[in-house]
Amino acid sequence: MTFELPIQVFWEDTDAGGIVYYANYLCFFERARTNWLRSLGISQRQLKESIGGMFVVSKCAIQYLHPARIEDELIVSATLQAASAAQLTIAQQARRRGANGAASELLCQSTVHLAWVNAVTLRPARIPGYLIEKMRS
Amino acid sequence: MTFELPIQVFWEDTDAGGIVYYANYLCFFERARTNWLRSLGISQRQLKESIGGMFVVSKCAIQYLHPARIEDELIVSATLQAASAAQLTIAQQARRRGANGAASELLCQSTVHLAWVNAVTLRPARIPGYLIEKMRS
Amino acid sequence: MTFELPIQVFWEDTDAGGIVYYANYLCFFERARTNWLRSLGISQRQLKESIGGMFVVSKCAIQYLHPARIEDELIVSATLQAASAAQLTIAQQARRRGANGAASELLCQSTVHLAWVNAVTLRPARIPGYLIEKMRS
Amino acid sequence: MTFELPIQVFWEDTDAGGIVYYANYLCFFERARTNWLRSLGISQRQLKESIGGMFVVSKCAIQYLHPARIEDELIVSATLQAASAAQLTIAQQARRRGANGAASELLCQSTVHLAWVNAVTLRPARIPGYLIEKMRS
Repeated sequence: MTFELPIQVFWEDTDAGGIVYYANYLCFFERARTNWLRSLGISQRQLKESIGGMFVVSKCAIQYLHPARIEDELIVSATLQAASAAQLTIAQQARRRGANGAASELLCQSTVHLAWVNAVTLRPARIPGYLIEKMRS
Repeated sequence: MTFELPIQVFWEDTDAGGIVYYANYLCFFERARTNWLRSLGISQRQLKESIGGMFVVSKCAIQYLHPARIEDELIVSATLQAASAAQLTIAQQARRRGANGAASELLCQSTVHLAWVNAVTLRPARIPGYLIEKMRS
Repeated sequence: MTFELPIQVFWEDTDAGGIVYYANYLCFFERARTNWLRSLGISQRQLKESIGGMFVVSKCAIQYLHPARIEDELIVSATLQAASAAQLTIAQQARRRGANGAASELLCQSTVHLAWVNAVTLRPARIPGYLIEKMRS
Repeated sequence: MTFELPIQVFWEDTDAGGIVYYANYLCFFERARTNWLRSLGISQRQLKESIGGMFVVSKCAIQYLHPARIEDELIVSATLQAASAAQLTIAQQARRRGANGAASELLCQSTVHLAWVNAVTLRPARIPGYLIEKMRS
């Protein structure tokens, strides 16, 4: 079950090397995670306001294979690999969008680990069980 | 009374045109305002936590005169022009740092208007009088 | 003739005040201008590579009326107001997307002036006539 | 031999969670690498203009241990771990600046791999030998 989000590369995403700045792939990956959660009916804003918790990235590993340039269109994906009360493991890819609209050449990939914290104290806590159930279903 | 902050241009600040991306001057100007306030003993983090209010930009006008490039060193300034309970008016400039270390060629300038809001409701409120007094002294 | 682009607010767009950071509206406005140009068949990447020129913002004025928050959906617009060989004047707005999908509450608006420069020397030049014709048609 | 750069957290670096947005540590790490290179007399802008090459990140792994908040002062470090013609390996840390001005609590750490590409074709190439010599000396 892979969630895919089309993302267009704008001037803001590039640097003077003419390519997408390396930190910005983490923004792209986060957008895909956010919309994957929304597709499951999970609003991070509501979680923060109602139960006072939020996801934070605890760890990630990123490989940069090919550069993206301005006006490129990407397909950015998020795939849940593992979910426990302690952490989520999500595989993510940014691929160039091919002529047929589907994802083609792999540009960047990452494995991202998410933990859960109290939104006020920022202390680690267990990921609420009903969120994990929604993700697994 | 002009506050000046040296700012170095990094890859993250530039775009594929090879120059500093236009939105990023607003970041530079905000850094100068933050450190001008800190030089007066005003911590925005403490204000938010203690009295539950914060400054927001209500209006600004920006002129871009010359581009900055990677590894340029800038002097970014903030000068209070007017202060009332309703708003602050701050003149800001980004100049290239000359060989002697002082600000030289003017690259970008802005007039920024700040208002005050309740940090929770985001409703406009009067700027606390003791902040204005600190700024005027 | 107004071009409209839907833009979703992600974590990256917000700051610790809980609202969209003021510089990021300039990114949103630039995305709308880019896609307005693309809707006219104008690719800024191709212009830079083929005729060695690019648009730069020479001036803008921005009003911030209401804050946007994470997961808000915006409609960001670009409307050409004037076009000469020296500069383009573009009116831009960011509105919250209403329940019916159309633009509602006005959050931020700007008038943006664009000039044209040689992409290597960064020297000002006349905007190519055929671009202006495409924009006017 | 560790290079250290003090970095202050500004509004732009934070998100609505009240903490530094996870992608922004990659900006901080890049700033430290840039100034480490400059401390060795290596200007990336000059390299791009004179020999037409540039460093790109090929891989990195990041651990997020504790969050940073607005107005925090960080010490961000870069330590060369290995250098070959194919890649540089650099260990990086972001620590909170303690009361004595020295780096204290570890917030985020990363191992970053850099490769070298032709700045026009973006094709991988060998890292120039004299750069590696400067780094090793």
